[in-house]
Amino acid sequence: MEQHPILIIGGGPAGLEAARGAAELGCPVLLVEKETILGGTPILSSYAALTPDMESAEEAMKRMADAATSESLVDVRTETTVVAATGDAPEITVTLAGPKGEEQVVVGAVIVCTGFQHFDPGRETQMYGYYEYDDVITLVDVERMLKAGNFVRPSTGEKPKRVCFIQCVGSRDRQIGNFWCSKVCCGIACKEAIEIREHVPDCQVFVFYIDMRMYGFWEDQLYWKAQEKHKVQFIRGIVTEITRRGDTVVIKGEDTTMGRPVEVPMDVVVLSVGMEPSEGTTAMAKLFELPLESHRFIETVGGALNTVSTSRPGIFVAGCAAGPADLEDSVSAAGAAVMKAAGFLRKHALSTETA
Amino acid sequence: MEQHPILIIGGGPAGLEAARGAAELGCPVLLVEKETILGGTPILSSYAALTPDMESAEEAMKRMADAATSESLVDVRTETTVVAATGDAPEITVTLAGPKGEEQVVVGAVIVCTGFQHFDPGRETQMYGYYEYDDVITLVDVERMLKAGNFVRPSTGEKPKRVCFIQCVGSRDRQIGNFWCSKVCCGIACKEAIEIREHVPDCQVFVFYIDMRMYGFWEDQLYWKAQEKHKVQFIRGIVTEITRRGDTVVIKGEDTTMGRPVEVPMDVVVLSVGMEPSEGTTAMAKLFELPLESHRFIETVGGALNTVSTSRPGIFVAGCAAGPADLEDSVSAAGAAVMKAAGFLRKHALSTETA
Repeated sequence: MEQHPILIIGGGPAGLEAARGAAELGCPVLLVEKETILGGTPILSSYAALTPDMESAEEAMKRMADAATSESLVDVRTETTVVAATGDAPEITVTLAGPKGEEQVVVGAVIVCTGFQHFDPGRETQMYGYYEYDDVITLVDVERMLKAGNFVRPSTGEKPKRVCFIQCVGSRDRQIGNFWCSKVCCGIACKEAIEIREHVPDCQVFVFYIDMRMYGFWEDQLYWKAQEKHKVQFIRGIVTEITRRGDTVVIKGEDTTMGRPVEVPMDVVVLSVGMEPSEGTTAMAKLFELPLESHRFIETVGGALNTVSTSRPGIFVAGCAAGPADLEDSVSAAGAAVMKAAGFLRKHALSTETA
Repeated sequence: MEQHPILIIGGGPAGLEAARGAAELGCPVLLVEKETILGGTPILSSYAALTPDMESAEEAMKRMADAATSESLVDVRTETTVVAATGDAPEITVTLAGPKGEEQVVVGAVIVCTGFQHFDPGRETQMYGYYEYDDVITLVDVERMLKAGNFVRPSTGEKPKRVCFIQCVGSRDRQIGNFWCSKVCCGIACKEAIEIREHVPDCQVFVFYIDMRMYGFWEDQLYWKAQEKHKVQFIRGIVTEITRRGDTVVIKGEDTTMGRPVEVPMDVVVLSVGMEPSEGTTAMAKLFELPLESHRFIETVGGALNTVSTSRPGIFVAGCAAGPADLEDSVSAAGAAVMKAAGFLRKHALSTETA
């Protein structure tokens, strides 16, 4: 009997890791990606370097994509989405909509790797001035400029003298309904701060934060390095307002360590935007009838000891579709999902043989 | 040809997850644990409830152990250590020392799951008074008391009125040479603070911290809940001295948010001790000639996109043997290691067939 493939939805870090890994176990894979290219957010959002080891995102994701696509067991469909699904694993009939129209395929198991989207800081709040001021940008805009090798003040095109990061934009925020910490923004801000200091040595860089969540090895690999080697200045504080004075953006708030108000002009203000479930994650949850947890990501069942199982047998989730995750989390979860999906299919194949 | 087993060293969360998962893929497993029982640190250190979902550690680990041991492909050896290894994967000859003497076995791949040990707060510093004062205890001591259902002031056996946690003991500390953040202590302290408030409702609980690293969903699941529902008081500050006044332990330091000195008597002081590589991790690294990274854990190769591969093909690492990890990290990494170990063995089996 021919084995039904594992359907992997999403061609970012988690999806590519899962596709290659499943193929190495001998499982046929159907890898579906809605965009024209593989690589996911690190490529689509033009990331410069990965956190924490600063490898080129383009090179790293190309290596992952090449490894997945070079496997003969991996059938890659770009510009393709899943538009319908019926039945239960190990026999789910999915309808794919691609460049050549619709097609029905029977798959044995599913791994949802549809990731996150960046919080839009102009969406629900005017506070940050993101749509109003050219010099208020996001972490993602910084990546794009760093990748182009040209970090400048957007309004003038000149090298900035003072840049600050504002942490927790769209995270830890009851008002906008995002109760979670997005986990990676502290590390990414540290990484970008180091890169800006390297790129524009006479630019001062400040990071306004509530807690610097530099867990594990990020502590010295990024945080101490940023402070000691690159003289990035970390200020525990709350920014309450971003306004303009003449041509310059001014941030107002409070330095909570020094217990004094802060009012500082900045050439560039970087909003450290957090993660929200992507449209694809929300859509696939609905299509496969996967319950969401309280933060609107796909719910896993089984507590801390089961990171990838959903409430539906044979359907797994990996990476940021299940919640904020760093790259390590995403690729580890992808491996865990492959182990469980392949184990699930093997169990059903054995029970069919003996039946 | 009979397939050589995957050797899994360590029967904690990562090792048990790896053993069950590998067996579900059809791989024979040799699971070696040096203690008399399975379950790892959650059992050996008498954890009460797991972070963040507060499931009974005993029940959760029993479920994992039962799932692993009930697989016919898993050969469990307790009270057994690996004392020698020669050759390379997929054919490594290891010598096991167990209750019935020594035995040589050929294994195809190895997953090192030898975990961490808790930092000993009396080891290199007298500052915390851990050996001097009965009422200065650690996170682990709290678990043991909570599990026994009897959280008391050790010196009197009475219910305490004031308890404080001191974060980052043995972590983020250049002086003692532990440069890393241990990742889980903030979450565990929050969880224990909640449990103490439930167990002793008229006891005030304080947490002294540098940064509360409540990443992802821990933010509202534990941190907000501790503050809002359970009235745990979080104080950003530095504790510089623990002394005694009469029968009471007094902590001295600085509240860095309020910018004022703090000198408070406490009935119980809990040191939130961090993670260090376990003796088993150090020993297995040496035995299998696996390089350590700069923090003395086992080095993984391949950056953020490869969490489990060591510098030796066919030898993988999962869980805290590779660095500070929460339970999610550990079980995800175990899955990733199984995927890669099984893929490695399959590739070699195919190349042997075609040779």
